[in-house]
Amino acid sequence: MSNSLRIGIAGLGTVGTALVRLIQEKQEMLADRCGRAISVTGVTARSRNKDRGISLDGITWHDDANSLATSKDVDVFVEMMGGEDEPAYSAVKSALQSGKHVVTANKALLAKHGVELASIAEAEGLLLNYEAAVAGGIPIIKVMRESLTANTVTRVSGILNGTCNYILTRMEQDGLTFEECLKDAQELGFAEADPTFDIEGNDTAHKLALLTSLAFGTAIAPDAIYLEGITKITIEDIEAARDLGFRIKLLGIATRTAEGVESRVHPAMVPLGSEIAEIGGVTNAVAVEADTVGSLMMSGPGAGGDATASAAAGDICDIAKSRPGHQHGPALGQPANTLTPHERAPMRSHAGGYFIRLTVVDTPGTMAAIATRMAEQDISLESIVQRRTKDHDDIEQAPIILITHETTEQAIRNALDGVRSDGRLIGEPQMIRIETLG
Amino acid sequence: MSNSLRIGIAGLGTVGTALVRLIQEKQEMLADRCGRAISVTGVTARSRNKDRGISLDGITWHDDANSLATSKDVDVFVEMMGGEDEPAYSAVKSALQSGKHVVTANKALLAKHGVELASIAEAEGLLLNYEAAVAGGIPIIKVMRESLTANTVTRVSGILNGTCNYILTRMEQDGLTFEECLKDAQELGFAEADPTFDIEGNDTAHKLALLTSLAFGTAIAPDAIYLEGITKITIEDIEAARDLGFRIKLLGIATRTAEGVESRVHPAMVPLGSEIAEIGGVTNAVAVEADTVGSLMMSGPGAGGDATASAAAGDICDIAKSRPGHQHGPALGQPANTLTPHERAPMRSHAGGYFIRLTVVDTPGTMAAIATRMAEQDISLESIVQRRTKDHDDIEQAPIILITHETTEQAIRNALDGVRSDGRLIGEPQMIRIETLG
Repeated sequence: MSNSLRIGIAGLGTVGTALVRLIQEKQEMLADRCGRAISVTGVTARSRNKDRGISLDGITWHDDANSLATSKDVDVFVEMMGGEDEPAYSAVKSALQSGKHVVTANKALLAKHGVELASIAEAEGLLLNYEAAVAGGIPIIKVMRESLTANTVTRVSGILNGTCNYILTRMEQDGLTFEECLKDAQELGFAEADPTFDIEGNDTAHKLALLTSLAFGTAIAPDAIYLEGITKITIEDIEAARDLGFRIKLLGIATRTAEGVESRVHPAMVPLGSEIAEIGGVTNAVAVEADTVGSLMMSGPGAGGDATASAAAGDICDIAKSRPGHQHGPALGQPANTLTPHERAPMRSHAGGYFIRLTVVDTPGTMAAIATRMAEQDISLESIVQRRTKDHDDIEQAPIILITHETTEQAIRNALDGVRSDGRLIGEPQMIRIETLG
Repeated sequence: MSNSLRIGIAGLGTVGTALVRLIQEKQEMLADRCGRAISVTGVTARSRNKDRGISLDGITWHDDANSLATSKDVDVFVEMMGGEDEPAYSAVKSALQSGKHVVTANKALLAKHGVELASIAEAEGLLLNYEAAVAGGIPIIKVMRESLTANTVTRVSGILNGTCNYILTRMEQDGLTFEECLKDAQELGFAEADPTFDIEGNDTAHKLALLTSLAFGTAIAPDAIYLEGITKITIEDIEAARDLGFRIKLLGIATRTAEGVESRVHPAMVPLGSEIAEIGGVTNAVAVEADTVGSLMMSGPGAGGDATASAAAGDICDIAKSRPGHQHGPALGQPANTLTPHERAPMRSHAGGYFIRLTVVDTPGTMAAIATRMAEQDISLESIVQRRTKDHDDIEQAPIILITHETTEQAIRNALDGVRSDGRLIGEPQMIRIETLG
């Protein structure tokens, strides 16, 4: 057996701690499978004295990430600190510049600095592995980067945030409001104290930015993603969706179109009975459509210490199995200097079906006025349902649900502007895009 | 750019032909992504003059596989001939012994000779890649061999044969008989002229044998798999399943139990609304349960020239990205000489729920007699349904459906022996195991 691979772990939160435990507990199995021992030789974290339920005996404590990243006793620097800038950014950069492979779970860092870091890794002949950064335990990075090398990807999409999927699942199953489900998710540890980043879609967008780059060979562009969170989704939407044969999921979707890359994160209606509709709770799923393989879907735990540690450990084992100095596949699937600029397709050109829920003043001519506004934009309607929810005793209000055939975002926006200007609306219209994956 | 990787392809059927076309058409993209060119330099097939719609100009024709496998102009030998023995076996062995990496789609060959071939590959420091051998375009081999290195797998299971899944899907959707659907599948090219190997479960068993070895580190043991095909599944079963909230799928399942490895291929009831129940038509799916990651599922095209060529091309690209002489991960996930013997758990100790469909003489005391036989074996019943199908006008016959709570295969077999001995049965009882994946 050749000499052992020495791991330095920066950040001992849930995932970092789970990773230390995993490497310690499975020492023998990992050595057998990788052909060499893997050992944690250094760690750093915010608090040295916190009891994490793991033994740090024999592991060198570093007071800052940079010291660990450049330590002579470390072959692989594992970054589990999080955050798009310091101290993670400098530590990862220093590690690569000191000839160390890097494994990271930090999607925010890669979304912002991924191309630069990948370039450094390639120039130094090092691996920059980030399986744990997207969709937790689902090995989507390896599949896109390696298995699909001979494919031209046309679309990548999925449920990439467990918190949002948990909330939407609970809302449907238990008839609870968004606020009630969020509170419940926070109590169960599925949502942060400040959940903004999850529920507004930013976390999904970071992951989608990485998948988009891998899919299309474009520079990572998190700011080119159209963003809508799930805060405006109501029980009425969920019930109407179910009645019409749909379920609401927060999706991240990137498609190659004639006008560029259409990248978007928003709640979407998916057909009941489709695989993606059955992804419940904190589970994530990613679907890839590509010219040669066709459609692939992967689902699994999108978060959690052990599942994410499993992904990071897989990355470490890949490094352990390879000999120093050998040629690696590039971090972003192709050399970083061959990535093309990300040309953003305008959201108004998005084509698809739409679910629209309006509450209107229930007077004669209202339905005709709405239908006229749709017709003006050449929008063809698949169904119109007038519903009364249990809570509406006021007979002057009537909720109306429209399902459109394929049209454009621009047409829908124009039509809704028209409906607004007719003055019969109560509140704002709800508009949810319909998606069929796979 | 370093020198090109030279590919020799033996077998120009659907997959071999698709692979040649793929490598030719995507020459530039593959060179960019892999850092070196990939070119087909030699081929062999049964008939030299057949028009396959691809150009073989500039590619050396070999009259036999062995000549191609040992050619000085080939770095990677791609075996697409099929068959568990000659000529595939000797050709692959010769290729490895001549220092060539091997890529194969041949599950039958690997199920029989995989451990020996993996040993040779490891001794020579060569890659033996077989992504295309299991579940077509789904990259399950890479995921199990690489991504899950730090996991102890407890169960691997899935829909591994597109022909059977197509037939079962058509039976349910269109109310056709098994024979009608098989004929239809043959006309559409989804089933062979002699479909025995697919419909009796042997093809699923070969794939499961490889997954079992990867999952548990046991020697490949295709003969240790309990086998039942789908030929005895009737429309009555499918309809009864749907009424009770299930769908019938042919599954391959390997579980680690206290008594050894329980490996089985048989039709199974899966709950409607689960991901696996939504896998329709020729699509395949594989679910893995493991200690660290939890549950993963992957679905995609299980067959087809392009999808399978995509998997083989991914294997070739992995070789192209690595430098000759570097250390590879072992073909079976751990060194072949560390595989443990496959200890087969007896099928009679299998524990689970059961669906039982009986046709009985409809006389007083029949239901009591059946219930007594179940009670004698401590089998607790979840539901009993007495159905009348449209075709049964004879009032003396009554179909009865039982769903049991968890019990053992032995108890069920004993109970059915008891029911048989009571002499009220018309025909043989149908027994289908209930499975919950993920």
